[in-house]
Amino acid sequence: MVLHDDRDQSVLTLSPPYLLFLGDAPAANHAKTAFGLKDWAPELCIGEYGCGTAVSIGLPVMTPDEAHERGARSMVIGVVNLGGFIPDSWIAPLVRAMEAGLDIVSGMHGRLSDRAELADAASRLGRRLVDVRIPPAGIPIANGRKRSGRRLLTVGTDCALGKKYTALALTRAFRARGLAADFRATGQTGIMIAGSGVPIDAVVSDFVAGAAEMISPEASADHWDVIEGQGSILHPSYAGVSLGLLHGSQPDVIVVCHEPGRTSMAGLPDFAVPDISEVMELCLALGGRTNPAIRCGGISMNSSALGADEARRLMTKESARLGLPVADPIRGGEAFDALVDACLRT
Amino acid sequence: MVLHDDRDQSVLTLSPPYLLFLGDAPAANHAKTAFGLKDWAPELCIGEYGCGTAVSIGLPVMTPDEAHERGARSMVIGVVNLGGFIPDSWIAPLVRAMEAGLDIVSGMHGRLSDRAELADAASRLGRRLVDVRIPPAGIPIANGRKRSGRRLLTVGTDCALGKKYTALALTRAFRARGLAADFRATGQTGIMIAGSGVPIDAVVSDFVAGAAEMISPEASADHWDVIEGQGSILHPSYAGVSLGLLHGSQPDVIVVCHEPGRTSMAGLPDFAVPDISEVMELCLALGGRTNPAIRCGGISMNSSALGADEARRLMTKESARLGLPVADPIRGGEAFDALVDACLRT
Repeated sequence: MVLHDDRDQSVLTLSPPYLLFLGDAPAANHAKTAFGLKDWAPELCIGEYGCGTAVSIGLPVMTPDEAHERGARSMVIGVVNLGGFIPDSWIAPLVRAMEAGLDIVSGMHGRLSDRAELADAASRLGRRLVDVRIPPAGIPIANGRKRSGRRLLTVGTDCALGKKYTALALTRAFRARGLAADFRATGQTGIMIAGSGVPIDAVVSDFVAGAAEMISPEASADHWDVIEGQGSILHPSYAGVSLGLLHGSQPDVIVVCHEPGRTSMAGLPDFAVPDISEVMELCLALGGRTNPAIRCGGISMNSSALGADEARRLMTKESARLGLPVADPIRGGEAFDALVDACLRT
Repeated sequence: MVLHDDRDQSVLTLSPPYLLFLGDAPAANHAKTAFGLKDWAPELCIGEYGCGTAVSIGLPVMTPDEAHERGARSMVIGVVNLGGFIPDSWIAPLVRAMEAGLDIVSGMHGRLSDRAELADAASRLGRRLVDVRIPPAGIPIANGRKRSGRRLLTVGTDCALGKKYTALALTRAFRARGLAADFRATGQTGIMIAGSGVPIDAVVSDFVAGAAEMISPEASADHWDVIEGQGSILHPSYAGVSLGLLHGSQPDVIVVCHEPGRTSMAGLPDFAVPDISEVMELCLALGGRTNPAIRCGGISMNSSALGADEARRLMTKESARLGLPVADPIRGGEAFDALVDACLRT
């Protein structure tokens, strides 16, 4: 399932499906991006290809030529390297992929085009080098004008606790109910999954709200954009990114993502994770500036650290306390159906 | 008066005093930057120099050599050009300034170093080309840790209504009372006035709060940093910048800047300017995340559109309504003294 329909060409746009490149990964945890893509977008992942690794993510092993024959249009670097730079040993396989007809997609810190061998091959062969950490050019200043269509934004009590996963799960659930819905990506893995998007935290600050407006463009009145949130409105390092994304997204509905058991915020041992209700109320107050009809659909609880019974008890208790549906999208079930119902209620 | 003491070299750092370059400005309104510098930092402005303009800002006209002899260390481009790019006719005078021993400082969109003639001359002569729109390298992610020293941040109900002027006026007033105080610049004109700073709206969004932490570094307990605010927490285009700056600045005191009579927000005809109290309460609630002791010192009213009597009546009325001092720093007087008192009260 391709979760994005390419209405807007000014965001980054990739060419799926993908061959996943594993390089010379010394261990499976170096291939997090590849595993993530296989888990979240299996329909986009045709095979895997390495250059001296013993790691496999469980896809058919194939050469770039074979992958291209089976429909692949890009090779995604699915592995991280120390320092985030492209090592010499990857140049030959990357050039080989371009010769086979594939674009190269990277989420690494080092730019693909900074390696002359890659830039030359891309130019000679007419392939694209796509760095998903680099925002597209021409992002406008936000104009604040209300766009048609419906929008949901996942927000969080902290970073890295399930905002992307929640948005993906809600998009699938909306589609399963026959609704027109697109997942809208704002981070590098999300962009690879969606095939397009803008890495919002890499955008120059003046343009963040404008980028958010571009990510979920005007749509038909009953269409849903389900937007991947970033950071937290109460995270002292990243709250500005979260606020620009909130203003530009103009969500009709927010879903607050939370992971019980975290004692401090990501990267900041001195800051406690705020309460769900505090984040919810702040996002509703601030989001009302560009969409006065904003409301909270419910809570997405990342309960992966808890047993099934404990998770159920906590979610029931939190639901009663907050007066809203609380569900873990990975566990699914009736609780998640109730969350989807509440998001869609108009 | 140099309003900044150069404790931190990782922000942009200029070399005053300045010779102001007027180019071939066709009219006085093209030389806004030069007039601004002369008004706000006359002690930094040694003279003016043009290449075919009839405009004068009222400083002694002198050549780069004469300016260098009188102590100038940089020539600041004090004039705008259509499109923000450096025209061919400016190359010779800019090179001549470098030959005389001056750095070149520019706030234009086009980068100085993009002109090969300028880059070559700078490299040959050992001069610096400083683009104050370009943030310095190496800005860290914010860590949220409380820094010693006192901080005041000017915030606003909208853009471009006096946040820089208010911060400058408060810095001077604090110094006039014998306090150690530095003006901290976050925009290009402010950076030229202060001789250092970071253009916060040009920083990549993930690093805005980190840049704000860098702008007002650790200081002695009784030292005041008076920080130039940007945008407005309720401006749909720029609120993210304002929030990152608020979090990273960790202000003990905010002063809310307002211009009565504005009917809509800068650039957004559909958005009304919010009430002073709404901006104040939101900034106090959000700013409490990194400084729980944050409080509002009072209101800076840009009453330039009003007559003296009308301005006085309005400020008295608003002061009674809000329970806070309200003053126009340009008008000064007892009202401004009362605002300064309230900011300094501990």
